[in-house]
Amino acid sequence: MTKLAPKEDTRTALIETGIDIMLRKGYNNTGLSEVLSACQVPKGSFYYYFPSKESFGLEIINTFDEKYVAQLDIDFSDDTLSPLQRLLKYVDDTIARAGQCQCSRGCLIANLSQEMADQNEVFRRRLSEIVLKRRDTIARVIQEAIDRGEISSGVDPAVAAEFFLCAWEGAIMRGKVQKSLEPYLAFKNMVFGRLFTASNGQT
Amino acid sequence: MTKLAPKEDTRTALIETGIDIMLRKGYNNTGLSEVLSACQVPKGSFYYYFPSKESFGLEIINTFDEKYVAQLDIDFSDDTLSPLQRLLKYVDDTIARAGQCQCSRGCLIANLSQEMADQNEVFRRRLSEIVLKRRDTIARVIQEAIDRGEISSGVDPAVAAEFFLCAWEGAIMRGKVQKSLEPYLAFKNMVFGRLFTASNGQT
Repeated sequence: MTKLAPKEDTRTALIETGIDIMLRKGYNNTGLSEVLSACQVPKGSFYYYFPSKESFGLEIINTFDEKYVAQLDIDFSDDTLSPLQRLLKYVDDTIARAGQCQCSRGCLIANLSQEMADQNEVFRRRLSEIVLKRRDTIARVIQEAIDRGEISSGVDPAVAAEFFLCAWEGAIMRGKVQKSLEPYLAFKNMVFGRLFTASNGQT
Repeated sequence: MTKLAPKEDTRTALIETGIDIMLRKGYNNTGLSEVLSACQVPKGSFYYYFPSKESFGLEIINTFDEKYVAQLDIDFSDDTLSPLQRLLKYVDDTIARAGQCQCSRGCLIANLSQEMADQNEVFRRRLSEIVLKRRDTIARVIQEAIDRGEISSGVDPAVAAEFFLCAWEGAIMRGKVQKSLEPYLAFKNMVFGRLFTASNGQT
């Protein structure tokens, strides 16, 4: 780009680039000058686009989440699959993507949760809203699977969804440090081969 | 302290203080001057104790891990409890501690795994060794529980241990961002009430 795009386009480009860099480097370690430079935006002009680094970070979180939720809505409304098959496909698709990038980056929401929860209460509250909303989404799919008899009726959907996300976000984190798909595959094996079964003991 | 303690004592104090600050702020966001100041060690004298911030970080990781492993060895060799009871006690003890600190801080090894895995290959390799060693430790307890008939023989101890740690580290992370014990309790409920049972379907 040889000349500046209109303000909104540039703002969007800064957010997209911010997502990319922050996924790899976290919030504190992401320099605004690196983001500006990657977008060929003049140094020193950051505050023309955002009032603060914190508000930039929140925009990044919101944009990342909007895209994630939009994709999840598509994945989880596929009527050609049963509820449990939808969950499995979501896991399989994520495993395939993780394999393509050597399990790097992970999930921005989880990365920033880990980094910022004790450091910035504004971030923590927003991240907490997002992770609880995801739990509700997963709980609805689990409830559907229970209604269809795919998961034992002894399972509490909210508790199972919280646990599902604990294990899933933990698998993504452990995959990142081990540079291996093993944690993802252990997740898939235990959740779909053992935890979410119709005849699982205490119905 | 009005005068400097001997070098080894000061070095130990810097590591202990580094653990405390890094647990809250991560690696990149921990300033050496803050650590020195908290230990009343003159600014600028850091390199008398450590060759680099990276080597300081590695010492912090190793010291944290040594203490953790020492405690785990005690917890898991308590012959008055069955293997599954030992795992449950470990979880209950951690939940009690998390409740006392509003689920803040979390586990330094998981925090740094999340932050540093894509940023520093020396850190990643050391952290990966540690998380795999923990998996082996948990796998041994699970194997003992299988041998005693407390956990179904259909469970692969290594896979179950990897999954246990994914879910556990994820619960600690989600507890930190939600400032709630709910993720810990979902973990306990699903793992001990459902996943690790003797009569769990596919034996």
